[in-house]
Amino acid sequence: MLKRKSLLLLLIIFVCIKGFANDGYKLWLQYNYIKNETLRNTYKLQIKNLNPLGDSETIKVALNELQLGLNGMLGEAYATNSITTKEYNLIFGSKTHLAQDISIQLANEFNQINDEGFIIKSIFLKGKKQIVITAKTDIGVLYGVYHFLKLLQTNTSIEKLTIVESPKIKVRTLNHWDNLDRTVERGYSGASIWDWHRLPDYIDQRYIDYARANASIGINGTVLNNVNANALILTPPYLEKVKALSEVFRPYGIKVYLTARFSAPIEIGGLKTADPYDADVIKWWQDKAAEIYNLIPDFGGLLVKANSEGQPGPQNYDRNHVDGANMLASALESFGGIVMWRAFVYSEHDTTDRAKQAYSEFVPYDGQFKDNVLVQVKNGAIDFQPREPFHPMFGAMPKTPLMMEFQITQEYLGFSTHSIFLPKLYEETLKTDTYRKGKGSIVAKDIDGSLNDKTLTGMAGVSNIGSDINWTGNVMLQANWYGFGRLAWNPYLSSEDIADEWLRMTFSNEENFVKPIKQIMLASREAVVNYMTPFGLHHIMDTGHHYGPGPWVSNLSRPEWNPVYYHKADKQGIGFNRTATGSHATEQYAPEVANMFNNIETCPEKDLLWFHHVPWDYKLKDGNTLWDGMALKYQEGVNQVETMVKTWNTMKPYVDAQRFREIQTLLNIQYKEATWWRDACLLYFQQFSEKPLPKGVEKPTKTLEYFQSLKFPFAPGN
Amino acid sequence: MLKRKSLLLLLIIFVCIKGFANDGYKLWLQYNYIKNETLRNTYKLQIKNLNPLGDSETIKVALNELQLGLNGMLGEAYATNSITTKEYNLIFGSKTHLAQDISIQLANEFNQINDEGFIIKSIFLKGKKQIVITAKTDIGVLYGVYHFLKLLQTNTSIEKLTIVESPKIKVRTLNHWDNLDRTVERGYSGASIWDWHRLPDYIDQRYIDYARANASIGINGTVLNNVNANALILTPPYLEKVKALSEVFRPYGIKVYLTARFSAPIEIGGLKTADPYDADVIKWWQDKAAEIYNLIPDFGGLLVKANSEGQPGPQNYDRNHVDGANMLASALESFGGIVMWRAFVYSEHDTTDRAKQAYSEFVPYDGQFKDNVLVQVKNGAIDFQPREPFHPMFGAMPKTPLMMEFQITQEYLGFSTHSIFLPKLYEETLKTDTYRKGKGSIVAKDIDGSLNDKTLTGMAGVSNIGSDINWTGNVMLQANWYGFGRLAWNPYLSSEDIADEWLRMTFSNEENFVKPIKQIMLASREAVVNYMTPFGLHHIMDTGHHYGPGPWVSNLSRPEWNPVYYHKADKQGIGFNRTATGSHATEQYAPEVANMFNNIETCPEKDLLWFHHVPWDYKLKDGNTLWDGMALKYQEGVNQVETMVKTWNTMKPYVDAQRFREIQTLLNIQYKEATWWRDACLLYFQQFSEKPLPKGVEKPTKTLEYFQSLKFPFAPGN
Repeated sequence: MLKRKSLLLLLIIFVCIKGFANDGYKLWLQYNYIKNETLRNTYKLQIKNLNPLGDSETIKVALNELQLGLNGMLGEAYATNSITTKEYNLIFGSKTHLAQDISIQLANEFNQINDEGFIIKSIFLKGKKQIVITAKTDIGVLYGVYHFLKLLQTNTSIEKLTIVESPKIKVRTLNHWDNLDRTVERGYSGASIWDWHRLPDYIDQRYIDYARANASIGINGTVLNNVNANALILTPPYLEKVKALSEVFRPYGIKVYLTARFSAPIEIGGLKTADPYDADVIKWWQDKAAEIYNLIPDFGGLLVKANSEGQPGPQNYDRNHVDGANMLASALESFGGIVMWRAFVYSEHDTTDRAKQAYSEFVPYDGQFKDNVLVQVKNGAIDFQPREPFHPMFGAMPKTPLMMEFQITQEYLGFSTHSIFLPKLYEETLKTDTYRKGKGSIVAKDIDGSLNDKTLTGMAGVSNIGSDINWTGNVMLQANWYGFGRLAWNPYLSSEDIADEWLRMTFSNEENFVKPIKQIMLASREAVVNYMTPFGLHHIMDTGHHYGPGPWVSNLSRPEWNPVYYHKADKQGIGFNRTATGSHATEQYAPEVANMFNNIETCPEKDLLWFHHVPWDYKLKDGNTLWDGMALKYQEGVNQVETMVKTWNTMKPYVDAQRFREIQTLLNIQYKEATWWRDACLLYFQQFSEKPLPKGVEKPTKTLEYFQSLKFPFAPGN
Repeated sequence: MLKRKSLLLLLIIFVCIKGFANDGYKLWLQYNYIKNETLRNTYKLQIKNLNPLGDSETIKVALNELQLGLNGMLGEAYATNSITTKEYNLIFGSKTHLAQDISIQLANEFNQINDEGFIIKSIFLKGKKQIVITAKTDIGVLYGVYHFLKLLQTNTSIEKLTIVESPKIKVRTLNHWDNLDRTVERGYSGASIWDWHRLPDYIDQRYIDYARANASIGINGTVLNNVNANALILTPPYLEKVKALSEVFRPYGIKVYLTARFSAPIEIGGLKTADPYDADVIKWWQDKAAEIYNLIPDFGGLLVKANSEGQPGPQNYDRNHVDGANMLASALESFGGIVMWRAFVYSEHDTTDRAKQAYSEFVPYDGQFKDNVLVQVKNGAIDFQPREPFHPMFGAMPKTPLMMEFQITQEYLGFSTHSIFLPKLYEETLKTDTYRKGKGSIVAKDIDGSLNDKTLTGMAGVSNIGSDINWTGNVMLQANWYGFGRLAWNPYLSSEDIADEWLRMTFSNEENFVKPIKQIMLASREAVVNYMTPFGLHHIMDTGHHYGPGPWVSNLSRPEWNPVYYHKADKQGIGFNRTATGSHATEQYAPEVANMFNNIETCPEKDLLWFHHVPWDYKLKDGNTLWDGMALKYQEGVNQVETMVKTWNTMKPYVDAQRFREIQTLLNIQYKEATWWRDACLLYFQQFSEKPLPKGVEKPTKTLEYFQSLKFPFAPGN
């Protein structure tokens, strides 16, 4: 008995040390030991043998992951066996490897899935119960395996399974704004994880774990480098490095993509021009494509930021975006590659409302792009604000595949110290009705192609990943990587469900933990809108680095880089009139939507100042004046963060020491900065409103001069 | 029985998973479970209770570390108790807290230690055996605790202990060449670990583990920022961040230091000058010192790189180094702070041999620096080469404390992919005889003050630490951080002993592992000398980034930045004549040493080309011509790396999968690059020697043109 007791003690110690040192590196693939003995034993009874079918790298990866996960969760070492005649084999492999007595039972399900989809089904084999994870491809099987593991991670019953899933979107990519010097534009989690110097030979364990994490949520592509591109990535030494990464990622179903600097033919090709009509340029890109595909046969394609914020593009040669995109698409098409051409354009020579320029530029080109071109459109027409109305291009180009671009990294949302659950934001955009084909024409339907029968579909997320041990600088923000992946797989998922499963996988299944923390996560996005940019305010962040409030900034060379351009506060009121009496931006929406926005009475208050210049004493729906309402919203945002802090503080029993302390500290910083936002913005806008703060709004902690004096010369990501 | 078996299995699984996922983060503080049951049980018998004395933060830290370490190694959870009347209490605390019946038994030992020293002694208390770890200060106790844990980590008997240790050097610092934007000059392990943006509020777990690691080897100071300094570090927002770090480090006995940009009074103080004789400048630094000490009462002091490689300094105002250093020293002295003034100077206006300039400039100032100034001198007169003769300043300034500056990061040694065990290099310098006070006047005696009764002493190591999960980019290079700390504590230690204990703590006590790996570690430094710069060659690395061979580089603006300046290869021969017929650099050494170097027959062959321009057909001691000998040395270096690779490949049974694979990959890269060095250098020098490669030297893998064409635009650390 003594021996047994000491073993138990030993075990507890190991668990403790493990608990103590949880640095967050394992993301949502924690595979925590299931403490509920009944449940654990039930699972053990239902998983007796692992029976992989086939021996591809992908199947090996799936087996490894199952072993790792089951070992962790059930405390049981699983070897592999042939299918036994006993009950509860866990059989996993693609359709071609299934015995006929199995595949015949799955015929219906196979009809429902696409090439990346999977089936998890409890079946009987010679009268004995079995679990089968299968798909048309090995990658589908891997997705099924991760789904199966998630069932255990979330303590879900596996008694009687019939799960049939397929991704609704084809191209599901992360965009890394990572530079070759390992800085990350708008990165707040340390340096780039791509250690270019040591590639191609040194394969960092991170690359493997990055692939595992992405495969577990169905991400199937990664654009390795910054959209503000350096042409050197297309030179042979770097292509060798890219190839090495592609080989790590291939078994996980992840294709590599690169950004193309449009002037690359000049910079690394020695040509005099990059004119897309020039025969030498065309040939240069064709040769480059052949060179790339020779190294990386499943190379995904190119992402291009052209004629935007100083990047070169076809317009340098009096050509247009179609000319540029199609020239590259031609070079890639015979290899199966695609071009993702960004619609994020606005010009210093165009004095019209910046919010209108992408639509004006691109919509006329509808139907002119080649079949292997996706136009990549940000969720809103300005730039990844805490809240934006959906981009008017969605629904407006029925003959052009539009790829959604969400930002996972928090350029405008306080950086990585602000625990904001972004799937709530993504969901809001995806579920918004464009009315382009009548009611119900929600953005998600344009993105998944169902609205206009588009076959090529895509969703991109600008990565928040860096060299920080916990990947995202803040464990809570791992949920945004996770949630982006889930929504790219299925844009109709609810953010609540995503939060629920992420919490269970990442931390604990204890209801006393999951319920309150889910609540603060779901409230967090509205909180940041409230303490930064309530009522449709936008782009009032401090300049350049976008850290902290800077509504007073007015001295930048391009007018649309200045916060004052966006809020237009004056003695009369505040907000950007984008109606027919203003910039006419509302005209870019379907009439139903345009009418709603145009009319100050029907315009949702959350978007009020995006579309209207509103008097300070305008009466809001709750009876408050705009000024009082704004001040109260700023206060509400601060209060919401206070609730987040207080709620987290009670969670110590459920979370390991390290992650508990880290998140606690970060929430405290968020509270401090929410207060800073409230005080700085209200003091600044008060100069125009000339009204006192209403009851319930706390007195500012410092003077406006103090807030205006703050400088952040080394803010990250800039 | 089933239950017990399953628990055991569970345990094994946990250990396996833990083993599988060893990412190297824990450094040499692995605290691996001691598998030898007899030994483990012996330790358990000999450690029954933990009895901390006192409740300072430092004692709490010591207790935590003991609990962590003993839990890991013995699988036993240790609570704390009062001293029981039973045997084998582990009593730890400072002298003032010791009961008289204990302290009386340690009187002799207390007489032998200094304030940072410690005593570990087995004593009898009321007839019962006890282990006492004590010291004059709590920091001493902490050092003793780490030493005690090391005994277990290295499987050493703790039966009858009498260990009395004191550090021989007072100031034992790491120098971080870390910039405020988180880039690290000459850093090859990712970004800076200092997350300035999130300080002071966010305390990264790394800061705590950094402090633990340093305390465990006796490092008691850290210079947080780059010697190429940015004055902003001295502004209030940054000082708040520095303060936060100082509070993390204080319980671990680590003081923070900063680098001072000499022109700070202009850049952040608004003054017109930084002239050290200017009253406003003097006052500005005094006020700045007061401001710093108000925040950080135990602030260590300032490190200054002045009038060197473009940094401003007193010479900008026609003052000298003494003027500059003493002005700063005056500002700090009342607070107990010190100035570390770097002697790494060479001027573009000075055409004499760069190797001579620091000596020429500084030695005349001997005795003129204030008491709280240390002159910080690199180990050699050029710049951290794979091998340099010791710096002639050592021993030559009897009235000035000279602080040794070693480089831990591998600026000139292939970056972090080359597994070089640097304590071998440090040891070589420290044990070299300067003959300044007759035979036996070794460098270590100047550094620890014993040669000339210097009271202020110091050793600095330029850190190889970065944001990579394993801290140093390569687990094998953790040994250099470790070894530097050990030598700063005791500069007379042998590198072999250091390698031995580091291997046992970091990996395993298995003799079949320790012996062969120690062997390759000890050979690794000679290997890098052989494949990069045999026979005293130096500074023939490619330009700027110093990565890879670049002996052909000759186009840089300053002559002494060009490799050709250093090797002076021509048709006649190769090498830098620094004798009386050359640059006269040998005259800066004591006559015994100068004579030895001057005479080509007595000059050690390892330094031959450092001091002599030698004909290609000069006969070496082994009978080979210089050309053949050089070629054979290059080959020998490659062969030595091949041995390293082969030896490591057999170590799979002793090392967890992740670290095994990582080190294996890195050694393969090192082999590839050693070959590159051999081929590029021999092909280049062959143009001058016009001789064939001797038998035994492999044919070059590529052409000289190919090697010369290689470019590394984003080499790290540049």
